[in-house]
Amino acid sequence: MQAVYLNNGRIEVVRRPKPRRREGYALLRLLTGAICNTDLELQRGYYGFRGIPGHEFVARVEAAGERGWIGKLVVGEINLACGRCDWCARGLGRHCAARTVLGIVRHPGAFAEYLTLPEANLHAVPRQLTPDQAVFTEPVAAACEILEQVRIPKGAPVAVLGDGKLGILIAQVLAAHGAKVLQFGRHASKLRIAAAAGVTTELAGKSLPVSAFDWVIDATGSAGGFMQAVAMTRPRGTLILKSTVHGAVTVDTAPIIVNEITLVGSRCGRFEPALKLLASRKVRVDEMIQHRYRLDQAAAAFARAAERGVLKVLLDSAHS
Amino acid sequence: MQAVYLNNGRIEVVRRPKPRRREGYALLRLLTGAICNTDLELQRGYYGFRGIPGHEFVARVEAAGERGWIGKLVVGEINLACGRCDWCARGLGRHCAARTVLGIVRHPGAFAEYLTLPEANLHAVPRQLTPDQAVFTEPVAAACEILEQVRIPKGAPVAVLGDGKLGILIAQVLAAHGAKVLQFGRHASKLRIAAAAGVTTELAGKSLPVSAFDWVIDATGSAGGFMQAVAMTRPRGTLILKSTVHGAVTVDTAPIIVNEITLVGSRCGRFEPALKLLASRKVRVDEMIQHRYRLDQAAAAFARAAERGVLKVLLDSAHS
Repeated sequence: MQAVYLNNGRIEVVRRPKPRRREGYALLRLLTGAICNTDLELQRGYYGFRGIPGHEFVARVEAAGERGWIGKLVVGEINLACGRCDWCARGLGRHCAARTVLGIVRHPGAFAEYLTLPEANLHAVPRQLTPDQAVFTEPVAAACEILEQVRIPKGAPVAVLGDGKLGILIAQVLAAHGAKVLQFGRHASKLRIAAAAGVTTELAGKSLPVSAFDWVIDATGSAGGFMQAVAMTRPRGTLILKSTVHGAVTVDTAPIIVNEITLVGSRCGRFEPALKLLASRKVRVDEMIQHRYRLDQAAAAFARAAERGVLKVLLDSAHS
Repeated sequence: MQAVYLNNGRIEVVRRPKPRRREGYALLRLLTGAICNTDLELQRGYYGFRGIPGHEFVARVEAAGERGWIGKLVVGEINLACGRCDWCARGLGRHCAARTVLGIVRHPGAFAEYLTLPEANLHAVPRQLTPDQAVFTEPVAAACEILEQVRIPKGAPVAVLGDGKLGILIAQVLAAHGAKVLQFGRHASKLRIAAAAGVTTELAGKSLPVSAFDWVIDATGSAGGFMQAVAMTRPRGTLILKSTVHGAVTVDTAPIIVNEITLVGSRCGRFEPALKLLASRKVRVDEMIQHRYRLDQAAAAFARAAERGVLKVLLDSAHS
C-alpha cells in the first residue's frame, strides 16, 4: 500500500505492506485524513517520531471481528488503551500509561491507504455528515474536552485567544454550549468562520483586556500568547491551556500565584459529543477546509499546512 | 521611631515619624516580626520595592477607634482592601484591585516600632499562643489557603515538594486536615520538624516518583522544582503552586497539557483557620525559629535569613 512516512523531518511517500488485522482490531481503508498542528510538530522533531503520521481521518471498515462494522464509514479515537488499568476502568483510556497513540506514539498513523484500530475505538459516522465534515471529529472532540474538565456556566463570558484551527473549533463548541464567547485573533478571514457560528470576534490589537475574564482559553500556540492569556484572566479565574507550545518556554509565574489563577491542561476528548455537535450543525467546519491533496502529494500538503494562516489541509486516499 | 528601611537592596535602620492613625485604623506597637522569603525577594528588587518592609508580625494595639482593641495582642491580615468592590463583598479583599499590601505594596510594613492597619484586619491572639507562635499566623494562613481553593479528600495522598519555611507549614496544615502527606526535601533537620507533626518525610534523591500523586504542592521556589512537581503529578491531577519563582522561568508545558494537569496558583489566606490550627497545637512552629535579632540589627538578620537552609529569623522591637 501507499503510505506517508515521516523520517527525520522529511515527508516521503513509500510502499508498505498492508497492515495485518489483530484480534479485536478493525482494518480500515482511508478515505480522507487531515493535517493537524501536532503532525507539523512531529515533523519538527516532537516525540522523536519516525513512522506513518496522521490521526485525523475518516475511513471505511474493510475487515473486523464484529461483522456489523464491515463496510461502515467510521472515525476513530486515537488513544489505544490497555483496557485493564484504573484509567481504562474510569473511561479515561486516553490517560492509560500503557497507551499507544495513532500516528503519534508507537502505532502507525492514518496517512496511508490502510490503518488498523481497535474496534472499541470506532464510531460510525452519522448519516447527516459528509466525510469532509466527519474528518473534524477528533479536533472537535479535543475542543469538547474542555467541558469535561471544567464547569463553564451557561451565559458566562469566555475569552478564546487565537484563531488557528483549534481556536475556531473551541470558540464554536463553547458558544454551542451556551457560553458568551469572545474570540481574539489576528486574521479577519478566519474569525469570520467563528462569527458565522454566533461567536463575537475581535481582531487582537496591541492591547488586550486585562484581568477581564473568569474563563480564558489559550489556543495561540505561542509563549507570548500564553502570557497574554494569563494577563486577561481575572483573579481566581481559570485559564485552559489548549495549545502545546513545544520545547521550553519562558513564563513569569508570579501573576499566576498572586492572582491565584487555575491553569488546566487539556488534550484529547471523547468522540460522542463531537459527533453530536457536528451532526447538529452547531459547529461549522466546511469553511475551514482550505486545500486538499492526494496522499502521494503529502510533502506539498505538509508544506502548505505549515504556512502561516492556513486552516485545514486534507489528504485524500487514491480510493476516495 | 526606629524603622527598617529597604532601599535599592540595602537594609538600613532609620528614624521615622511615628505613623498617624487614620479613621478606621489601629496604631500598633510591634513586638516581633518575622522575615519571609518575600522580604528577601523584595530586597532582590521584586515589585521595585522601597520603604519599610515586613508583613509577618505580632503587636500590641496602642490606639484604635473601637476602644475594645486597645492593649490587645494582635496579628493582622496584610491586604488592605477598598471594602466596596465585588471582591471585598465576596470576602476576597485579598484580590481587591485597589488593595495595598502591608510592607509589600504601598503601605509601610511591620519592621518598625509602630505600624498602622485597618481594625478590620486585626485578629486577637488567642491566649494559648505565645507571641513567637502567633508571628507564624500569616504563613500558616497562606498554607491554609490551599484548602480554601481545592477540595483535598481526607486520607488522600499528597506530595509536598520542598522543605523551606512554607513547605514545612504546608505539610503540617495538610496533615492536620487529614491528608496523607509525603514531604520531599533536602534537609533532614528541617524534615524532622514536619515528621514530628505526623508528616511522612523523605530526603529527595536524584529520582523522585513519577506520575504518582493526584495532589502535589510545589514549595521549592525553583524552576527545576516546579518541573519535578509536574512530573510527580498523575494525569488529571492537581499541582498547587505555592512558591513564587520570581522573574522569568523556563518550563515545558507539554506534560501539563498531555497529562491534563491542573495548576492552581495560591497566595495569602484567611487568618481564622490559621489561628485555630496554631492554638490546637496541630501545627508546630517552635522548632522553626532559628535566630532572633533586634530591629536595629536588621541588616544582619536579613543576611542570616538569606543563608541556605535557614528557617525563621525573628526581629524583636526594643519594646519587646
